[in-house]
Amino acid sequence: MVEKITSLQNPRVKQLVRLRERRERDTSGLFLIEGYREVRRALEKNIKLQDLYFCADWFLGENERTLMDQAVAAGAQLTELSKEAFAKVSYRDRPDGLLAVAPQWKRALEELTLSTAPLLLVVESIEKPGNLGTILRSADAAGAEAVIVCDAVTDIFNPNVVRSSTGVLFSVPIVIADSATVHAWLQERGVQIVATTPATPLLYTQADLRGPLAIVMGSEQYGLSEFWLKHSNALVRIPMAGQADSLNVAMATIITLFEAVRQRTT
Amino acid sequence: MVEKITSLQNPRVKQLVRLRERRERDTSGLFLIEGYREVRRALEKNIKLQDLYFCADWFLGENERTLMDQAVAAGAQLTELSKEAFAKVSYRDRPDGLLAVAPQWKRALEELTLSTAPLLLVVESIEKPGNLGTILRSADAAGAEAVIVCDAVTDIFNPNVVRSSTGVLFSVPIVIADSATVHAWLQERGVQIVATTPATPLLYTQADLRGPLAIVMGSEQYGLSEFWLKHSNALVRIPMAGQADSLNVAMATIITLFEAVRQRTT
Repeated sequence: MVEKITSLQNPRVKQLVRLRERRERDTSGLFLIEGYREVRRALEKNIKLQDLYFCADWFLGENERTLMDQAVAAGAQLTELSKEAFAKVSYRDRPDGLLAVAPQWKRALEELTLSTAPLLLVVESIEKPGNLGTILRSADAAGAEAVIVCDAVTDIFNPNVVRSSTGVLFSVPIVIADSATVHAWLQERGVQIVATTPATPLLYTQADLRGPLAIVMGSEQYGLSEFWLKHSNALVRIPMAGQADSLNVAMATIITLFEAVRQRTT
Repeated sequence: MVEKITSLQNPRVKQLVRLRERRERDTSGLFLIEGYREVRRALEKNIKLQDLYFCADWFLGENERTLMDQAVAAGAQLTELSKEAFAKVSYRDRPDGLLAVAPQWKRALEELTLSTAPLLLVVESIEKPGNLGTILRSADAAGAEAVIVCDAVTDIFNPNVVRSSTGVLFSVPIVIADSATVHAWLQERGVQIVATTPATPLLYTQADLRGPLAIVMGSEQYGLSEFWLKHSNALVRIPMAGQADSLNVAMATIITLFEAVRQRTT
């Protein structure tokens, strides 16, 4: 028997709304996965769903029931919401009637198993969830073995990271750590550290991006921190023809990652 | 004497709201430029502002008055809005108290003055304003001489293109035209046409992207059209390590443009 919630005051409804906020995510250790595509990808990547909330009034397609069956088979508890209750818990402009709650995970640097010449991406203090999502997609497309988020500002379980990463959050290994720890770990493993900053003469295309490599990208607002400016093996810049802020950090990350791919495959 | 509008039913308030819709933009030939940064960039690029609406209650900084003086000196008509009226006309989450209305412009292919070896970007039927804005930024950063939008779906004066282009809309030459016309025009000028598609063996790094070049990108949903698949000099693909949709059209555009920059400068 599937429970149905209609009251907007139901404590579980209220918790779903609170899970949009970092505080609730931090204390509960849970996060939201909203939408058919996102829930499907989570299941494909064997992400354990604790709950799956649904409301058929919002369904856009015809495969939702199949997905619900899969979620239940994988251990998720199914709960029905009224149309109004679902509208309240949805953080999308256009809800599609599926919202899952899953436990967060944490991966430590030591848990990463690296190839002999890994390509790693290190990002500092990214603020905008949309940028973090795009950066994760870029890392996936470029075949980066892991993304290391230093001194995280936006938590990776923010609903907009979940969404903008189009499911890559569920597959790319992500580690959260402080810069000093990451630097020591990279050095121990003989990984070259190349960081991007506008204030350097060397072009990113002139640096050797083959071999064990970590590309370091600074934050949107402050750029690369003093720490990485000092502790990198090379500083490189991307040439800019137009106005100074035409490239944001996500765009600069894509460019640098794919130059590394080019050098490593030709 | 500056007119002040307080009524939400005022016809000018209503027109500002309607200008978010393409129909009103098409019939009036006007478009919206919202926000301090956007208005400042429009003035810097000598975009003629017809009206500048303001509401000091929403101001976030201290330089708004200076900008308003500049706008008036450049011919804009100043109108004050009440806090409620401004909230109604703003399309942003956080209004900053400035909203301009400007006449649209149109540029024809014949008006483009090209260098001897131009880098051009051709995009087909882009749907998402955010993607179009990011594509314009990429073209600016890569020093593309013009962006040609074939068979436009999203109009370039959509408020979200204005916003996501961070002012590049005001500086990069943009032409709207149909594919057949663009193709003929490129051929007459001896411009090589390189189009990206996943279904081709040649990597984008293996193609010669020097000399007079037009890079053609397909739409989000349908990819490259039959027309450009047939009428390009070369088809190239970007290698994908991860899930199939990790790169969207804006990301693929950045990668291809900067490979062209690399080849042309080394």
